[in-house]
Amino acid sequence: MSAGAPLQLTIELGERSYPIMIGEGLLDDAALLARHVTARDVLVVTNSTVGPLYADRLCRGLAGKRVRTVTLPDGEQYKSQAVLGQVFDALVEARLNRDGCVVALGGGVVGDMAGFAAACYQRGIEFVQVPTTLLAQVDSAVGGKTGINHPGGKNLIGAFHQPRAVLADLATLRTLPARELRAGLAEVIKYGLVDDAGFLGWIEHNLDRLLALDMDALAHAVRRSCEIKARIVAADEREHGQRALLNLGHTFGHAIETAEGYGEWLHGEAVAVGMLLAADLSQRLGWLQPAEVERVRTLLRRAGLPLDAPRIGAGRALQLMGMDKKVLQGRIRLVLLRRVGAGFVTSEYPAEALQATLLHHFGAPA
Amino acid sequence: MSAGAPLQLTIELGERSYPIMIGEGLLDDAALLARHVTARDVLVVTNSTVGPLYADRLCRGLAGKRVRTVTLPDGEQYKSQAVLGQVFDALVEARLNRDGCVVALGGGVVGDMAGFAAACYQRGIEFVQVPTTLLAQVDSAVGGKTGINHPGGKNLIGAFHQPRAVLADLATLRTLPARELRAGLAEVIKYGLVDDAGFLGWIEHNLDRLLALDMDALAHAVRRSCEIKARIVAADEREHGQRALLNLGHTFGHAIETAEGYGEWLHGEAVAVGMLLAADLSQRLGWLQPAEVERVRTLLRRAGLPLDAPRIGAGRALQLMGMDKKVLQGRIRLVLLRRVGAGFVTSEYPAEALQATLLHHFGAPA
Repeated sequence: MSAGAPLQLTIELGERSYPIMIGEGLLDDAALLARHVTARDVLVVTNSTVGPLYADRLCRGLAGKRVRTVTLPDGEQYKSQAVLGQVFDALVEARLNRDGCVVALGGGVVGDMAGFAAACYQRGIEFVQVPTTLLAQVDSAVGGKTGINHPGGKNLIGAFHQPRAVLADLATLRTLPARELRAGLAEVIKYGLVDDAGFLGWIEHNLDRLLALDMDALAHAVRRSCEIKARIVAADEREHGQRALLNLGHTFGHAIETAEGYGEWLHGEAVAVGMLLAADLSQRLGWLQPAEVERVRTLLRRAGLPLDAPRIGAGRALQLMGMDKKVLQGRIRLVLLRRVGAGFVTSEYPAEALQATLLHHFGAPA
Repeated sequence: MSAGAPLQLTIELGERSYPIMIGEGLLDDAALLARHVTARDVLVVTNSTVGPLYADRLCRGLAGKRVRTVTLPDGEQYKSQAVLGQVFDALVEARLNRDGCVVALGGGVVGDMAGFAAACYQRGIEFVQVPTTLLAQVDSAVGGKTGINHPGGKNLIGAFHQPRAVLADLATLRTLPARELRAGLAEVIKYGLVDDAGFLGWIEHNLDRLLALDMDALAHAVRRSCEIKARIVAADEREHGQRALLNLGHTFGHAIETAEGYGEWLHGEAVAVGMLLAADLSQRLGWLQPAEVERVRTLLRRAGLPLDAPRIGAGRALQLMGMDKKVLQGRIRLVLLRRVGAGFVTSEYPAEALQATLLHHFGAPA
């Protein structure tokens, strides 16, 4: 693709519809920024890793506006009520009013927190996502889920608040640590597993290009991931139904993240292991063949993702899964695989099968 | 009215429509509670003043459900991020899931915080308002505004989140301190001033009955206030336009509350003084006659409400008003009175007139 011509997708949500722009060099493209950030007063929310690399360029691109910046500490452990309070303080100090705009410059943590702050400040102001990690570009920056963690569970406190635009600058992936790139690939693989076997085959075929930061391959991966997410979010914004498909591996993964302490595992790493558990359970229930589970495992291994859950014990894992948001009426809803490329959501499975999967991966209760 | 037959109004908001029930003895009416609190898992949020009086009765009325209670400290100064965190902790500890329900038992502070916690917990669960102050019954429990204060401004952090029902038990007003009853009357008077001159006349005629806790008079005041609010909220849920009328006196009042420290002034007291300032400015702009301003002052005095703003200085007041949510593009929007019974929202007024009102009431800048 040409660096001068970003791709555009649209999340169709009626009057809350918004564009996803995918390309290289977007974050200091003044004309593009002026189209998507229309407010006069702007607060840029970033973190101590991304800010020094890109905040000045973004702020220069926003020339002519009154722009302030707040820099948060970097890491999932800072997606907390205390750090959220820092964003509120910065909004008040910048004297943003209802017509101001928050711009999130960073990965999933920055985007989730900045978006949640925008959702709550003055009961809701605009925000624009400028995701700088693969995970944020393919998943967390798109779809309006915002929030923070609670010591009792991931993302337990939050809001649905759609951004005005998502500006995914692929060039920022060149400064992304390899571990974070691999964590983002877990979510890319997720889209193939739950929705598109053809895309999964493409990922298998192009994995080395993706790992080598081939921009054309990355552009295709981000675009196809966002296309799938856009379709599903447009049909079920508030996750009453099929949007839950996008949580493949997440209920298991959240238990890992909560048990191990936020920040020890990257979100995508926990999701990778969680997807393996979902595949394992799908096999126990007769949906997947052993060779299909092996195919999932092989792809995750090639992507450099972890395959082994921490040995926290099946009981503790089940307890932490019970605090996940996908529990209704005391039953844990799970995303399973009917086959590769076709996920489904269910709470109809024998408890013994889940227990066997948990015992196998998390170990016996202590 | 008969104690056995509550009045019912409806807030018409499509699929988010909900009833307001007004009557005596509602809070332990098991059949009524069962109709409006359908969840199996309930967290009752109350405070240290109201809880000892009514929480046990409410919990008995909710028999058959899994009910937990969290008791917050009493006072506007506790409508804070820290105390909100206590509600989140209680929700996690009670292991409420998406299908749980928060019940707010108390005044405006409890309702605003419990509602905001319900809005954010798991990105939104149900809540039911059981308001026990006049202010909450006529205003804050109705309409879905929830939130907390920030040291920089009142209600700066919050969400629109409509309750499933509002159950206004008039009998609880018998234990309300006289000062709080008077503060609630300020909001009742507000409805007359901005929307219904006939109702204002009724209030003037029945003020002594209201102050003496005559249940028929209170029922009429709560009902008429809620009718007006219901109509305005149904037409403009998110305050893009006419809902701002309900903020008569609030921009001035918020400046007083913020300057004096939350909890020193009751909200209704600050609104009373704020309404006088709005009347003063409306007179300076040629809308109100001096006799009409005097009529407002006389009614507020008879209701036992404060008439004098604290001498914080016009400059500080203007600065604090600038942090109010009703500021757009740097202009302070105000609710003024075209005549008694007819408010309007405007940012078109000479700055000098506002300055004269502020100087007169808040004193010269220090």
